[in-house]
Amino acid sequence: MTSDLPVLLAAVSIVSALHISFQARRVGRSRMNHNIMPPIVTGPPDFERTFRAHQNSVEFYSIFLVVLWISGIFCNEVLAALGGIMYIVGREMYFTGYISESKKRLPGFYLILCVLLFLTVTATIGIIQSFLDKYLNIRVL
Amino acid sequence: MTSDLPVLLAAVSIVSALHISFQARRVGRSRMNHNIMPPIVTGPPDFERTFRAHQNSVEFYSIFLVVLWISGIFCNEVLAALGGIMYIVGREMYFTGYISESKKRLPGFYLILCVLLFLTVTATIGIIQSFLDKYLNIRVL
Amino acid sequence: MTSDLPVLLAAVSIVSALHISFQARRVGRSRMNHNIMPPIVTGPPDFERTFRAHQNSVEFYSIFLVVLWISGIFCNEVLAALGGIMYIVGREMYFTGYISESKKRLPGFYLILCVLLFLTVTATIGIIQSFLDKYLNIRVL
Repeated sequence: MTSDLPVLLAAVSIVSALHISFQARRVGRSRMNHNIMPPIVTGPPDFERTFRAHQNSVEFYSIFLVVLWISGIFCNEVLAALGGIMYIVGREMYFTGYISESKKRLPGFYLILCVLLFLTVTATIGIIQSFLDKYLNIRVL
Repeated sequence: MTSDLPVLLAAVSIVSALHISFQARRVGRSRMNHNIMPPIVTGPPDFERTFRAHQNSVEFYSIFLVVLWISGIFCNEVLAALGGIMYIVGREMYFTGYISESKKRLPGFYLILCVLLFLTVTATIGIIQSFLDKYLNIRVL
Repeated sequence: MTSDLPVLLAAVSIVSALHISFQARRVGRSRMNHNIMPPIVTGPPDFERTFRAHQNSVEFYSIFLVVLWISGIFCNEVLAALGGIMYIVGREMYFTGYISESKKRLPGFYLILCVLLFLTVTATIGIIQSFLDKYLNIRVL
């Protein structure tokens, strides 16, 4: 174990994995409350919103991990980790908003989009710098 | 290519990717057996259980990869790889159980949860050690 | 930032993340065109094909990332990155084909399968070489 490992990115990733597991558990509880047994995935709007709120997290989770780690390793680890924390906050806002009313998922969703944009831009800057350095031997900054 | 690469984690990851692809193929075969053409995802309970068994693998796959790699790199690669093998065994039990009867997915599911808990705890221990070493210069063990 | 980072893999990963986000947005637009509000995921075949085309991308995305990165790091980065570009082309063919007609998803799907097979084989070769080197001190090639 070296002290060069990106420990902040790892910490944020573990917290995000726990958060999405916790959402899966809330879907399971909603199943029990409404007596909707697997493999059924339809039911009262209340259950369907909970189910879809978790599904949306799943759909975006790999995208989040890609931009988080590339931003953190190619650009700046602290900034990326802060972005990751904001993403998890946005995911919680999205989930709790969505299960109460479909429209209330939107504030969390806009925060999620801002964070993903920020991580994508910083990741792209890092990739361009690294590409110039590695293949063209040009050092920017 | 250096000999420092986490080859056991890579091997387990490739096997898990093949396993989940194999599950996708079994969903495709179930589609053909029941003559359920895409984009339809509903049908006889038998097909819906097969479809959902694969979906559950997809929902957990990124979580698994996160805790597998962080546990293996920050804590112990051999232990994490063994956990990864147990996870794949649990996934196979879950899938074959689920397609025969909904309740029979549970033994595999409990094994999956145990493995994820083990990987999360070892990953967290590794992160804490690495954090103390990197930022506070404290070496535990 | 060192110049040893796998910048080509990172670049392909960012492009693939943007591509899958763009597909999610096209699902959102299809929702608006057909006035299908979340959490509903059923509707005219046109919408359901768009929805499932994106879902299929999500189902395979983690598998793609696993074989892309392991192939690129354990075998050859340039070959893996080229494979990654072909995968994104296949995903676009799959998506645009699927939304016009279910059967038209197949050419893209076959390209996707070829790329995944190529990345899996090269990843496996790299893992075997790395394993022999690390644990048995045998150098092939």
